[in-house]
Amino acid sequence: MADINSKLEIGVTTGPIRGSRKVHVGPLKVAMREIDLEPSSGEPPVRVYDTSGPYTDTDATIDIQAGLPPLRREWQLARGDVEEYAPREIKPEDNGQLGPDRSGGVPPFPTALRRPLRAKPGKNLSQMYYARQGIITPEMEYVAERENLGRAKLKEYRREGQDWGAAIPDYVTPEFVRDEVARGRAIIPSNVNHPEAEPMAIGRNFLVKINANIGNSAVASDVASEVDKMVWSIRWGADTVMDLSTGRNIHDTREWIIRNSPVPIGTVPIYQALEKVGGIAEDLTWEVFRDTLIEQAEQGVDYFTIHAGVRLPYVPLAAKRMTGIVSRGGSIMAKWCLAHHKESFLYEKFDEITEIMKAYDIAYSLGDGLRPGSIYDANDEAQFAELYTLGELTKRAWEQDVQVMIEGPGHVPMHKIKENMDKQLEACGEAPFYTLGPLVTDIAPGYDHITSGIGAAQIGWYGTAMLCYVTPKEHLGLPDRDDVKVGVVTYKLAAHAADLAKGHPAAQVRDDALSKARFEFRWRDQFNLSLDPDTAEQYHDQTLPAEGAKSAHFCSMCGPKFCSMKISQEVREFARLQNQSSDGFVAVEEAEKGMEEMSKVYEETGRELYMGAGDREHD
Amino acid sequence: MADINSKLEIGVTTGPIRGSRKVHVGPLKVAMREIDLEPSSGEPPVRVYDTSGPYTDTDATIDIQAGLPPLRREWQLARGDVEEYAPREIKPEDNGQLGPDRSGGVPPFPTALRRPLRAKPGKNLSQMYYARQGIITPEMEYVAERENLGRAKLKEYRREGQDWGAAIPDYVTPEFVRDEVARGRAIIPSNVNHPEAEPMAIGRNFLVKINANIGNSAVASDVASEVDKMVWSIRWGADTVMDLSTGRNIHDTREWIIRNSPVPIGTVPIYQALEKVGGIAEDLTWEVFRDTLIEQAEQGVDYFTIHAGVRLPYVPLAAKRMTGIVSRGGSIMAKWCLAHHKESFLYEKFDEITEIMKAYDIAYSLGDGLRPGSIYDANDEAQFAELYTLGELTKRAWEQDVQVMIEGPGHVPMHKIKENMDKQLEACGEAPFYTLGPLVTDIAPGYDHITSGIGAAQIGWYGTAMLCYVTPKEHLGLPDRDDVKVGVVTYKLAAHAADLAKGHPAAQVRDDALSKARFEFRWRDQFNLSLDPDTAEQYHDQTLPAEGAKSAHFCSMCGPKFCSMKISQEVREFARLQNQSSDGFVAVEEAEKGMEEMSKVYEETGRELYMGAGDREHD
Repeated sequence: MADINSKLEIGVTTGPIRGSRKVHVGPLKVAMREIDLEPSSGEPPVRVYDTSGPYTDTDATIDIQAGLPPLRREWQLARGDVEEYAPREIKPEDNGQLGPDRSGGVPPFPTALRRPLRAKPGKNLSQMYYARQGIITPEMEYVAERENLGRAKLKEYRREGQDWGAAIPDYVTPEFVRDEVARGRAIIPSNVNHPEAEPMAIGRNFLVKINANIGNSAVASDVASEVDKMVWSIRWGADTVMDLSTGRNIHDTREWIIRNSPVPIGTVPIYQALEKVGGIAEDLTWEVFRDTLIEQAEQGVDYFTIHAGVRLPYVPLAAKRMTGIVSRGGSIMAKWCLAHHKESFLYEKFDEITEIMKAYDIAYSLGDGLRPGSIYDANDEAQFAELYTLGELTKRAWEQDVQVMIEGPGHVPMHKIKENMDKQLEACGEAPFYTLGPLVTDIAPGYDHITSGIGAAQIGWYGTAMLCYVTPKEHLGLPDRDDVKVGVVTYKLAAHAADLAKGHPAAQVRDDALSKARFEFRWRDQFNLSLDPDTAEQYHDQTLPAEGAKSAHFCSMCGPKFCSMKISQEVREFARLQNQSSDGFVAVEEAEKGMEEMSKVYEETGRELYMGAGDREHD
Repeated sequence: MADINSKLEIGVTTGPIRGSRKVHVGPLKVAMREIDLEPSSGEPPVRVYDTSGPYTDTDATIDIQAGLPPLRREWQLARGDVEEYAPREIKPEDNGQLGPDRSGGVPPFPTALRRPLRAKPGKNLSQMYYARQGIITPEMEYVAERENLGRAKLKEYRREGQDWGAAIPDYVTPEFVRDEVARGRAIIPSNVNHPEAEPMAIGRNFLVKINANIGNSAVASDVASEVDKMVWSIRWGADTVMDLSTGRNIHDTREWIIRNSPVPIGTVPIYQALEKVGGIAEDLTWEVFRDTLIEQAEQGVDYFTIHAGVRLPYVPLAAKRMTGIVSRGGSIMAKWCLAHHKESFLYEKFDEITEIMKAYDIAYSLGDGLRPGSIYDANDEAQFAELYTLGELTKRAWEQDVQVMIEGPGHVPMHKIKENMDKQLEACGEAPFYTLGPLVTDIAPGYDHITSGIGAAQIGWYGTAMLCYVTPKEHLGLPDRDDVKVGVVTYKLAAHAADLAKGHPAAQVRDDALSKARFEFRWRDQFNLSLDPDTAEQYHDQTLPAEGAKSAHFCSMCGPKFCSMKISQEVREFARLQNQSSDGFVAVEEAEKGMEEMSKVYEETGRELYMGAGDREHD
């Protein structure tokens, strides 16, 4: 057994993302990132949504042993509806220590002994409760500032897009956020015991969000790599992180993650409950599960995946399937029902669970335990039977003003994706949809970040509020640090593609800034404006390593001798001369007149474009 | 100057793709690949479409110096409408030798001196011509056999999908192929001087195809790497390959590629023509261009990208754009028009070009020189003005029975993709659409195989017949061997996702076989059935290297102690007992009765599932 008093060494990636600065906007000092462009551009810096927290802030001091500052604590206490109390005692089984511990153990988080908060008797801490009381919380104001990013430039844009019935405003006011939360169309996951989190919204009328999954693998040293993965995933854009740890040291691993996370943390409590009963599903009891909810609530988990829709009568429907039940939580509950021939205790005790949720403001993520695990099983009756039950449970949670989102598939061919979105909106009263992909084909293991990114972009366009990433290791193994980054960037681009297609008023600002930089050969700006500046520059440098190439008016595709972008600049000059550019089609004779003038200009200047270009075609 | 008589060393990847065998089907010995499954599965081998040619055939001997056998030569001669003739003489400028050659030179292909074929006076070698004469050629029979792949299993499948007005048959007959080619809805690119190519069809009612781009970079040694890239790209699934070489040694490089290619080869002749005039666009003449067409026709290029839609009056329209003209060919022609203030010679001489096409059966790939280069420019008037001209040219080519496909964008947000497909179908009379992506956002350089794969899957679903791949290096540099593979696999999965969504009757066979293997823990079958077995196995082995894990009934995600797939097998047994599985919803009381019986069975057997599993949760 290791000396758990020895200080745990945890290294994480800090420092600004290449080419950008952290800025804090408005009275609430909402964290954003600004990308400065080359002076030659004459363009202002581009502001982008930032999930990376203090880790990319050069003014912040990071101490993993102390955790992040409790940003929201003052707001919570000011509401006067919380009380400190003595936490539930930590038991060996919380860390999976049923028998002799061969894991080496994980040192407890140094300040883990702090006293948790909960609602005073009869109070409800849920953002939905406040919203329905007409109260605009600082959390809602923070979200409004954050989501408004870029809308200042809105006037420059013709708004277009197909939003499939969403209600995306030109400008996000705190009142709009309150109203969306009040009617259940958006959630702000914010456990009172996770004051370190920066408020964010998940809802169809806000920017599409993405989640990254991490989770330990039962050896002590891994707590360090899990905290590192969490920081790494938010650096590249994860809006929330789910800790899917199983096995040993779950409790302490989670504590290290939450105390250092500026984004909401989600879990699947049944995983830990299962460990507490030695991995035997049928030995699970409501008491063990309830105790686990309290344990995690006191630590600050912001949303719980609860598979309460896997009802007894639906289990047989999964038998017809090609791939049965692929959700771990779903199969745990199916097995429990099977062994006891009883209705799920999650379904039966749902209102009691809701009582716990509202005492801490934990949001439901109603799990799709019967999601399809293959193209063959997509949109079958087991899946939709569960979905309608999740809709019923959504209304029951809303009766107690508790926030809810709904988890979705999975494996779905493109022509069946929209049906998932439409049925979810109808069954669940527009509660935010949170989908895993979906993967649009089963035949590309090793590339499932892409097969699922295709489905994610589409369902995000149709109205899904948050996309759970899939990494290249899906179906094959545990993602490492590189897989996490590829998964996050892939989902970030899919979510952004969805925002563009929905007609989000500000989404295109970044595309335009990058395209303009590309057209004007501002290579550094092109790298810095991209989702992954490091990779973009590295790929460029593989062909043109010279520093000069960073400002060169050519690239390695066409080379200096001939470049289509160059021509376009002449075309523009030509158009200026004939003063025709903005009047649509040009009559041939008018065009020829302009051409004639331009050809003179060209004779004087044009050929100079090629001076000294040498014969470097492609390198 | 290197000794161009020295034998050129070219190494390519040969041998079967892991887990599969080459088979030759039917009287025409159509090449396909068969994947054998583990005996335990009781399943027959799965046949998949194969583009890799003799390189993956263990019975074939590969000699790059001799090229591939002329599969189609007999068929051509049997038609009695061709004549051998003395080829055009190769000039130094064909290889870009205008000044002193600093490139080191490329040895000519050993048998490059063979005599080319062309149509006898007054004859037309186009597959479209034969089709319209009611003639079913061996090429059409070959295509029918190839496309029918897997349809034998059709009866097992409920046909579904949304085909957006396509006419995909349950079974592909040679007559169906003939009819599709006759009406211009499909093409079979098959230059009479490329008899090594295995016939394939590009059309909305056939499997969605993909193209890979390669091209030299003006140093001699690169001819070897370009031939290697060609063989590498078809190994992973490229249906056609475009040689976009520029600079030196274009002629000889192309000869090496064509002689060794079992797939149709496409080019952009204006690139080589430009090199012949020293890279000065305005010095291009019809004579130089025409001479280049003949040169490439005699070598066996199967389709030509011709940017004849970039008309004088459209050039000014590009001036309003954020990123102007991004097509190299398009900007060459725009520049030519600009300098001479004249209508494009490609447009004016179009019928003369068509005369050449039909004498060799070269297909048009009408280039979209005004495609958008950014989200901002998508679907603008410049783009659609050109598209309607391409429609006009399509009809003019069809008047001479010459095959045509139409190139499409580019950069298009998701909500504007379908408009591209709909307008193309309407303007071009259902001639096959051949798109580059489209990229659905501009903000992810380094990941543009994914931003474009998302758009490619969608437009393929809507009806695009062939998808031109984009590699991770797009916008940044020249793709290397690894980039080519990632690009091809990404596009292969996008094309397959489109086939599934269109309701192709046989596409799902492979998804189902792989999902079933996954459900039954047949790891090797899962790897072998995937698009990239090497990567799938490598990813799996990073977490579970032990050989035993290949047959283990668990994976590294849930581990042996608890697995959702296991549960599903119990659920299935349960359902068998209560004999309820296929009757939709199950009444709770009935379910409980079954549960009761099952719980007895379970008590006797269920727990054994976990014997000896130890405490390995995640490793």
